[in-house]
Amino acid sequence: MGKLRPKLYRQFYPKAWTGQGLSPVNLLIIFFVLASVVTVALETEKSISEPYAVIFQTLNIVFLLVFSIEYITRIWVMGEHPEYQGVFGRIKYIFSLVAIIDLIAIIPFLLGFIGSDTFLLRLIRLSRILVLARLGAFTTALTNLRSAVASRGYELLLSAMFTLGILLVSAVILFVAEKDQQPEAFGSIPRAMWWAVATLTTVGYGDVYPVTPIGKVFAALSALSSLGLIALPAGILAGAFGEAFRKKRESDQDS
Amino acid sequence: MGKLRPKLYRQFYPKAWTGQGLSPVNLLIIFFVLASVVTVALETEKSISEPYAVIFQTLNIVFLLVFSIEYITRIWVMGEHPEYQGVFGRIKYIFSLVAIIDLIAIIPFLLGFIGSDTFLLRLIRLSRILVLARLGAFTTALTNLRSAVASRGYELLLSAMFTLGILLVSAVILFVAEKDQQPEAFGSIPRAMWWAVATLTTVGYGDVYPVTPIGKVFAALSALSSLGLIALPAGILAGAFGEAFRKKRESDQDS
Amino acid sequence: MGKLRPKLYRQFYPKAWTGQGLSPVNLLIIFFVLASVVTVALETEKSISEPYAVIFQTLNIVFLLVFSIEYITRIWVMGEHPEYQGVFGRIKYIFSLVAIIDLIAIIPFLLGFIGSDTFLLRLIRLSRILVLARLGAFTTALTNLRSAVASRGYELLLSAMFTLGILLVSAVILFVAEKDQQPEAFGSIPRAMWWAVATLTTVGYGDVYPVTPIGKVFAALSALSSLGLIALPAGILAGAFGEAFRKKRESDQDS
Amino acid sequence: MGKLRPKLYRQFYPKAWTGQGLSPVNLLIIFFVLASVVTVALETEKSISEPYAVIFQTLNIVFLLVFSIEYITRIWVMGEHPEYQGVFGRIKYIFSLVAIIDLIAIIPFLLGFIGSDTFLLRLIRLSRILVLARLGAFTTALTNLRSAVASRGYELLLSAMFTLGILLVSAVILFVAEKDQQPEAFGSIPRAMWWAVATLTTVGYGDVYPVTPIGKVFAALSALSSLGLIALPAGILAGAFGEAFRKKRESDQDS
Repeated sequence: MGKLRPKLYRQFYPKAWTGQGLSPVNLLIIFFVLASVVTVALETEKSISEPYAVIFQTLNIVFLLVFSIEYITRIWVMGEHPEYQGVFGRIKYIFSLVAIIDLIAIIPFLLGFIGSDTFLLRLIRLSRILVLARLGAFTTALTNLRSAVASRGYELLLSAMFTLGILLVSAVILFVAEKDQQPEAFGSIPRAMWWAVATLTTVGYGDVYPVTPIGKVFAALSALSSLGLIALPAGILAGAFGEAFRKKRESDQDS
Repeated sequence: MGKLRPKLYRQFYPKAWTGQGLSPVNLLIIFFVLASVVTVALETEKSISEPYAVIFQTLNIVFLLVFSIEYITRIWVMGEHPEYQGVFGRIKYIFSLVAIIDLIAIIPFLLGFIGSDTFLLRLIRLSRILVLARLGAFTTALTNLRSAVASRGYELLLSAMFTLGILLVSAVILFVAEKDQQPEAFGSIPRAMWWAVATLTTVGYGDVYPVTPIGKVFAALSALSSLGLIALPAGILAGAFGEAFRKKRESDQDS
Repeated sequence: MGKLRPKLYRQFYPKAWTGQGLSPVNLLIIFFVLASVVTVALETEKSISEPYAVIFQTLNIVFLLVFSIEYITRIWVMGEHPEYQGVFGRIKYIFSLVAIIDLIAIIPFLLGFIGSDTFLLRLIRLSRILVLARLGAFTTALTNLRSAVASRGYELLLSAMFTLGILLVSAVILFVAEKDQQPEAFGSIPRAMWWAVATLTTVGYGDVYPVTPIGKVFAALSALSSLGLIALPAGILAGAFGEAFRKKRESDQDS
Repeated sequence: MGKLRPKLYRQFYPKAWTGQGLSPVNLLIIFFVLASVVTVALETEKSISEPYAVIFQTLNIVFLLVFSIEYITRIWVMGEHPEYQGVFGRIKYIFSLVAIIDLIAIIPFLLGFIGSDTFLLRLIRLSRILVLARLGAFTTALTNLRSAVASRGYELLLSAMFTLGILLVSAVILFVAEKDQQPEAFGSIPRAMWWAVATLTTVGYGDVYPVTPIGKVFAALSALSSLGLIALPAGILAGAFGEAFRKKRESDQDS
């Protein structure tokens, strides 16, 4: 028993794993998390879930068992971790953010069998998607990417503010230009914002667009400024990654 | 009194603030500026502003008071600034660009209570959006971003000219190809420009698109060239930011 | 004969070619490959292929002859290559991936004359497009580009995972917000995914878009996040290419 | 007279100008070129050109005079240039590419007064747009940008080939998936190409889009690959500009 716990600890706790990449147990958990997300998504499509109701019910029971066993085993093996030793250590772990997210991810599976179909329960059931959030814990590489982005966080924030400013100015101008012609689509600044977002992100659904000549002129200017709004964050991130990659190479050369 | 003015001066004038970031007073002003912008925007949406007319009127009075007090206090405390000392210094400040923008930003709040609903006054009322322009004065970091962009201003200008050239050529070709089939959408070069902007910025509303085979071939070529039109400014900015970030790091290493 | 084979070997095998760029024979083959791809594509358009049926049949016979002669000649001349000498070397070559792709690319031309019009055969006929895959064998430069991308493969994978995460979250939110109003377009998460992909890639066909205020708010947030989803891979690739180009220049300076 | 020609030569020939930027004469010519382009464009819009027919006719005469005088003066003053001295030098200049473009740019103005309204003449009249091409002669800075792009020309070409490959594969898959449901939009590969271009460039007019589940799945994959198709050239250009800007800075530091 004393030999099984450290073994499982190395399998469950990524930082304790001494091999390359992820441990077999963690790879399996990732597989089940992704499978449960896909199952939840497909279950909402009645044309798929109704003919195969039995399969989906079986899968849900499997997921419930797997994640419950994982949750309990993880509490047990975390006793190996210096911070979570003993009964009080386990209580400390149970109330840690990671463990709470794990628990929340299991609850909707339990509620799923009640069969209630109200909006609220469906929302909780959808929170199963939250299991995805745990994937971030498996990889430390994400931190590198995040630090490169964070190093230029202020410039990116300014870029975002700039985008919001152009959005608001575009919405105001088109509101003034088009509100008499198209009160439904441009009758208020919030409504014009919907058009402005669709235009400046270049999504352009085509449900709303200006029809007056003056509206078209300003809409064209807004659309053209979108080229800059895409280029600005791309350029900032490119500079940030260039710096980060160079730093890493230089520190690799020194060592 | 002689102690209050220097204290408020440090609170109001960002460059005189010795602490980290922005002073509490300036943070409060930013909050009120943003709140007033959101209020103006929501006020135009009748389905929101009419049921809550009293709240919007109250908010407008609050904004009027806050910005009036801020305007007068700022004139008073700017006496601490070497350039704006004494009565003549204050007159000099009142006619400075920053103070005039502040005043213009207050006027529409006053006019707002007249209740007139003509187009012109509404335009002035919308100029309250201009208060946003003052936010730029709060941050010197913007200057860094602006200088990086300016260092490649000529290349970016060429990129913009290139975009305009492709826009015009695309519009002319589609005008020739489609004007007989779709006189409403492609009957003139300015009309075809509306299509060209929507296509080359990749917005693509779908209100106008070519229907003839030859028109579709050239439209496809235009659309494909949009990949370059997005990549060109992004690449130039990336190079500029890469240079700027490297320069800063090198000067940080020297000191 | 002993003089013809080495000559043809240098013409057919790119690495054995001592001149600049590609050998005349390989340039000719590229031309025929591209011509056959265009022919296949145009043949599907009845308004083009029916009036010119004879031309298309002739072209198909020409392509069949050219690629058959090329295939047989290549087997013969590969005897010059140290790995493929003698009868057993040729058998080894015939079962190499490159030769199998070559053969698969010829088969549909043969089947094309049977005149059958079933779906399956048409699919095989379309596999002629696979001939394009051989173009990669002509250029080693592609490897350079591929290695630069591969050097940041992990960051690009994270960027792709991030995109998938935002896609799923956007689809779930819009599914909840719009499913009662638009069951056809947003009635399940897979259906909402179609909207999410169109929005986050900024394609925005306009066949589906939210109509409820809350749906529009979250759709706007999704659309705005698309700016980051485009900027992230562009930034990573820019950093990777910057590194690769610099490395190459430095190694060029050393030698 | 001997003093006027060198003076005008410095005004007309950008490389001979000793002052900063462009000479006043060249700035004036740029203004007239742009004005003539705008005039041609507006003239095609009947709702603008018909009420102001006299203004447009006057403008056309002005442009004809200005460009004719410029053309003749340029021939005269180019005698100062070592290559174009004497009568034979002038003949050599008249048949140079720059001078021929200048002449072609004047011809449609002359034909414009004939009043003919046939398609062919209108096409020639539109060639007045070509005057824009001369703007390139005014700036040597464009060369710098062009050289940075050219230094990575092969990588950009591969990126373009990659885009074409994805375009073709997407079009073929959607042709197979949708041709029975939507023969008008996806009934042939060339037709499916129109959809593929609109999707992969993220223009997304919305005139054609898949309706079958399998078509939507592959269309979604195509749309997602567009993120890479935009990021790839942007990344290559970013790397190229980064190199070019760094080289320039290093050579500036050496001198």
